[in-house]
Amino acid sequence: MSNRKPLILITNDDGYHAKGIASLTEAMKDLGEIIVFAPDSPRSGMSCAISTSNPLRARLIHSEVGLTSYICNGTPVDCVKLALNEFMNRKPDLLVSGINHGSNAGISVLYSGTMGAAIEGCVFNIPSIGFSLCDFRPDADFTATAAVARNMAIKVLEAGLPSGVCLNVNVPMGEIKGVRVTTQTQGKWVNEYHRSKDGSGRDVFWMTGNFENWEEENDNNDEWALANGYAAVVPVKIDMTAYDFMPELKKWEI
Amino acid sequence: MSNRKPLILITNDDGYHAKGIASLTEAMKDLGEIIVFAPDSPRSGMSCAISTSNPLRARLIHSEVGLTSYICNGTPVDCVKLALNEFMNRKPDLLVSGINHGSNAGISVLYSGTMGAAIEGCVFNIPSIGFSLCDFRPDADFTATAAVARNMAIKVLEAGLPSGVCLNVNVPMGEIKGVRVTTQTQGKWVNEYHRSKDGSGRDVFWMTGNFENWEEENDNNDEWALANGYAAVVPVKIDMTAYDFMPELKKWEI
Repeated sequence: MSNRKPLILITNDDGYHAKGIASLTEAMKDLGEIIVFAPDSPRSGMSCAISTSNPLRARLIHSEVGLTSYICNGTPVDCVKLALNEFMNRKPDLLVSGINHGSNAGISVLYSGTMGAAIEGCVFNIPSIGFSLCDFRPDADFTATAAVARNMAIKVLEAGLPSGVCLNVNVPMGEIKGVRVTTQTQGKWVNEYHRSKDGSGRDVFWMTGNFENWEEENDNNDEWALANGYAAVVPVKIDMTAYDFMPELKKWEI
Repeated sequence: MSNRKPLILITNDDGYHAKGIASLTEAMKDLGEIIVFAPDSPRSGMSCAISTSNPLRARLIHSEVGLTSYICNGTPVDCVKLALNEFMNRKPDLLVSGINHGSNAGISVLYSGTMGAAIEGCVFNIPSIGFSLCDFRPDADFTATAAVARNMAIKVLEAGLPSGVCLNVNVPMGEIKGVRVTTQTQGKWVNEYHRSKDGSGRDVFWMTGNFENWEEENDNNDEWALANGYAAVVPVKIDMTAYDFMPELKKWEI
């Protein structure tokens, strides 16, 4: 680190008014100069979505020494892109996203707006971390997660992260036994819709469901860690190429 | 393959009324029984986004022997999930998504709704392929891409794909020299916004930009293939774990 205070970009997918981002901002406050650039309302499940045809707007909403906050009408990835392209005059030393209200372990990394933002930070070659607490409630207790976030941020500011890799950190409810480095649990969501009727009697489908774990005996994955009281840290790659399958695929006559 | 005709699920992100999905449907028509389940309007850049708080609706829009089509108010991933959870009574043998109007090579795989749908098919353990033509125009000529799509579909129906791997197929404009198996090009979009004013004089930001290639000398990546007249096939993994970085990360004291 240079003598200059680290610059930290904070965003999330639950929106600027969520408790989780307030807890994260509080945990980061004395580590550097903070820019918060967050969606103006909830954007859960937005993955790496970008607004390709609607105009984005951003508004300064808070400013004090060391902390400047904006809200934006876009997705989490829009927030990161817009902040970095148009609102910041130097590259941040760290991007932190969250703290999400609810788990982003296992396959949920694909759908998560919290992780979308961290992945976008990684695209910009900024050390980036997404934090999630396994508690959906608006008034969830973020104390333990904020402490983990602070420790991780200090470590990443010091050590950096490899190019193309960001971190997906999930924390269980209650007291935690420690932090484990894990893989992304293989599995999928099942029973994904609740069918009901609208006011005119037409079918509508609401997202619901539960995660089906396909590798329950593996104590090296994030679902195991969370179920056993540990925070789970999965290093996430933005290069999705399945290198292992390339030799076989090259043999195909296509 | 069994004696039963293969069941093929088709979706896209440009919406049911796009030329690309009509071309893809035409190319698949004699390969099996077709279900089209597509967004009712364009959903470009939707990545793996899901609708977590808005109700989904679907409507039967076309039915003939061997071809049934629905439109849905959700994202591409919503379409795949809803079709598979609620509208299909057996698992498809193949999912094809596209043909997208515009490239989804390089880092665009992260933002692409076309690839979001293919990735979701892969989550369901269905052999899945996303197809894109490097031509954004609504009236683009999909002839060559449709031929590639047909060949790839026949091959994948026959050989399958490994669990957790789908294919991202991009095709250049004009005549193609052949098909190459490639990696996802490293790089990012730059100059991503055009700033203008709304009717009240306030700043608005529109997505634009160009892809900056960080590995121009590599003839093994998708951007190279496309620039040199080849269709590019990238095998894409849904497990994003950065296994290579795990040993180092485990040494951190966190």
